[in-house]
Amino acid sequence: MMSRLAPRRPAWLFWWQAACPQGVSAQQRTWAGASRIPGTGSPWGATGTSPLVRRGSSSAFSCAPEVVLTRERYSVRRLPFSVVSEDDLAALERIVPGRVITDPEELEAPNVDWLRTVRGSSKVLLRPRTSQEVAHILRYCHERNLAVSPQGGNTGMVGGSTPVFDEIIVSTALMNQIVSFHNVSGVLVCQAGCVLEELSRYVEERGFVVPLDLGAKGSCHIGGNVATNAGGLRLLRYGSLRGTVLGLEVVLADGTILNCLTSLRKDNTGYDLKQLFIGSEGTLGVITAVSILCPPKPSAVNVAFLGCPGFAEVLQTFCTCRGMLGEILSAFEFMDAECMKLVGLHLHLACPVQESPFYVLIETSGSGAGHDAEKLSGFLEQVLGSGLVTDGTLATDQRRIKRVSSPRDPAVTPQQRSIAALPAAGDRARPLTSRCCGP
Amino acid sequence: MMSRLAPRRPAWLFWWQAACPQGVSAQQRTWAGASRIPGTGSPWGATGTSPLVRRGSSSAFSCAPEVVLTRERYSVRRLPFSVVSEDDLAALERIVPGRVITDPEELEAPNVDWLRTVRGSSKVLLRPRTSQEVAHILRYCHERNLAVSPQGGNTGMVGGSTPVFDEIIVSTALMNQIVSFHNVSGVLVCQAGCVLEELSRYVEERGFVVPLDLGAKGSCHIGGNVATNAGGLRLLRYGSLRGTVLGLEVVLADGTILNCLTSLRKDNTGYDLKQLFIGSEGTLGVITAVSILCPPKPSAVNVAFLGCPGFAEVLQTFCTCRGMLGEILSAFEFMDAECMKLVGLHLHLACPVQESPFYVLIETSGSGAGHDAEKLSGFLEQVLGSGLVTDGTLATDQRRIKRVSSPRDPAVTPQQRSIAALPAAGDRARPLTSRCCGP
Repeated sequence: MMSRLAPRRPAWLFWWQAACPQGVSAQQRTWAGASRIPGTGSPWGATGTSPLVRRGSSSAFSCAPEVVLTRERYSVRRLPFSVVSEDDLAALERIVPGRVITDPEELEAPNVDWLRTVRGSSKVLLRPRTSQEVAHILRYCHERNLAVSPQGGNTGMVGGSTPVFDEIIVSTALMNQIVSFHNVSGVLVCQAGCVLEELSRYVEERGFVVPLDLGAKGSCHIGGNVATNAGGLRLLRYGSLRGTVLGLEVVLADGTILNCLTSLRKDNTGYDLKQLFIGSEGTLGVITAVSILCPPKPSAVNVAFLGCPGFAEVLQTFCTCRGMLGEILSAFEFMDAECMKLVGLHLHLACPVQESPFYVLIETSGSGAGHDAEKLSGFLEQVLGSGLVTDGTLATDQRRIKRVSSPRDPAVTPQQRSIAALPAAGDRARPLTSRCCGP
Repeated sequence: MMSRLAPRRPAWLFWWQAACPQGVSAQQRTWAGASRIPGTGSPWGATGTSPLVRRGSSSAFSCAPEVVLTRERYSVRRLPFSVVSEDDLAALERIVPGRVITDPEELEAPNVDWLRTVRGSSKVLLRPRTSQEVAHILRYCHERNLAVSPQGGNTGMVGGSTPVFDEIIVSTALMNQIVSFHNVSGVLVCQAGCVLEELSRYVEERGFVVPLDLGAKGSCHIGGNVATNAGGLRLLRYGSLRGTVLGLEVVLADGTILNCLTSLRKDNTGYDLKQLFIGSEGTLGVITAVSILCPPKPSAVNVAFLGCPGFAEVLQTFCTCRGMLGEILSAFEFMDAECMKLVGLHLHLACPVQESPFYVLIETSGSGAGHDAEKLSGFLEQVLGSGLVTDGTLATDQRRIKRVSSPRDPAVTPQQRSIAALPAAGDRARPLTSRCCGP
């Protein structure tokens, strides 16, 4: 039997993802007209043997005013793309009039990633409003052999949303229109630059939820979420984007618009090409519109935070709660004592239960508050009585749920404090991690 | 904007699927070394303008002892493949000793499809036991330019699981081993030839269910289910196979084994190549093993059969029940009065409620019988009180559930009677259907 043929990322990327508790939501990137390094999926010209420790070292998180250029930090070389000329700027201005940004100050933020670990030196940022404009841009860049780096909310934690060298940044920020929402089927169709939190608000007002929730929801774009196949806090309940994304519109590197923007729940008409773009991080094209199935909004949410005496008990607690809570179980997460110590040390958050070797967070979401509370109470009696759990606390109102959930949700803590905790988490994860999926 | 680039099936296939209430579960097909007609995904050498009416005509279902050869029924031409020689048989015998079938009587059934509408004239059937044997077979056939038609349970309803001419049939019937099952994660790994019902039994004994259920479950193979992206009765609750299938092992036409058989719930390491094979009906390779996520088995199931005065009320009933039943809703199906008449006429089944313009079947599956019954009763009070529903019946025990569900489930009726109802259903569906997905 042959080994897996699918392209793999370089090792440092696996490790890095293990160290990132927050949702990866970088927008995808494409080098128009350029071939990527086969078998790696790496955005770098040459991956080489980039040292693991450097991306996780505490100096990377020290909020230095100046972030080292990517090309200085890593042994990457620029591929032989053209350099943007005055003629190019004039041509791009004709494609997106008034939306060609060349002011160095305005370009500072989109050149640096959220964790301030990498920095590109792009001199141009474009703000298209439509897929057609994206297609014109990519077609032009393809013909002129100009490198392109698409960017959404730039909230990614693996340096995938910023240019590496002087690529033209194509921002989806102005592609933020909701195309349609169907009140019966719950199918939302929108442009790729819609901010996740705004989409959430929009569908929640109509009795639905987006099947994806991330710490970075206030800034990340749905196109970037799909491009990175982000999972987030609702994965256990609603599954991955491979099941909930119904359709995509994608612009290929040569400017071809691939229209797979169906809103049919199960479309078997031909190969499901859109799947290739989910999680491909822009290596195959730029996602410009998304059709996504939104489930009904649960009317009752409860959170329990429990202490467990060992990992075997964590697993047994999981099996017990899956059996007793069944369809209302929407999250099950665990952390060990060492992890909780780091949370206390770096995020200054108190553990909501007595010190234990392991901690478990359980969330339920259902349509009947009374029924859910009854199920949860039966479950807690069972696990406390059998010794699987030694201590626990239950939250049913929104304020207390937020407090109890805080050790697992960097969204409720200042970002810099979350960043400060990452190197330590990385040090812990590295020896344990041989392969890791995105959050 | 360009039109959809994904290959499409010929029109008659769309129509035909609309006419088939039962699960498509044919095993995939591959012509080793042959190119398919681009843009159609059609298994036929030349699609031409095959008349819609012929596949749906009642003569096709008259259980004639002799089924007309496909090459006589349709204007298809054999592509220039080699013909199986005595040397080929000897070589294949070395690959799968004692499992090369050439007896014409044994070959009769696998040459004819389940609906007895198409018939191939294959002279050889092979029964590999392992992926390696499939790889050896395909490599040999590729080198010798021999056409191959893989076959699972041969329960498909679109003639996709039988040879068209004299292709070598590669049956997955002996590839029926369960490789592993994880009691905590619910991940089942098995060979492609496992029968769906046997897998169901296996995981149900362990407190789980296969996220797929079809009328043909007693015969269809899981490999064929995946190859056709079958949906079935549990789609509403557990989503499509694109979300629940975690990994696949596939043998390509040249004998290369592509190992994407991960059991990680969300594997972001590289492009998700397995998605290309889900629903591609064997045009890209032969699925030999499947890794699938099985959800916990619900402890309580209820079925309600309701009469509605109009289609607007059907939609409102759907919205109401999604809101009130929420996470326990596992099926919502409707049929109109004409459809119910056909069910009575051809399947001799009585309507369980008073005659109405529309009928709705609602199924709930949950972890608490009392809570579910309470939710369902509240919902029924609401829809009966508001006039959305004019009559209804509720089933909570297995025997009654089976009876109430019978109009929608051909599995509970003799197959020939189900077949007899299809042409009439097809006549009704044709003018209404421009595009249809699989069941």
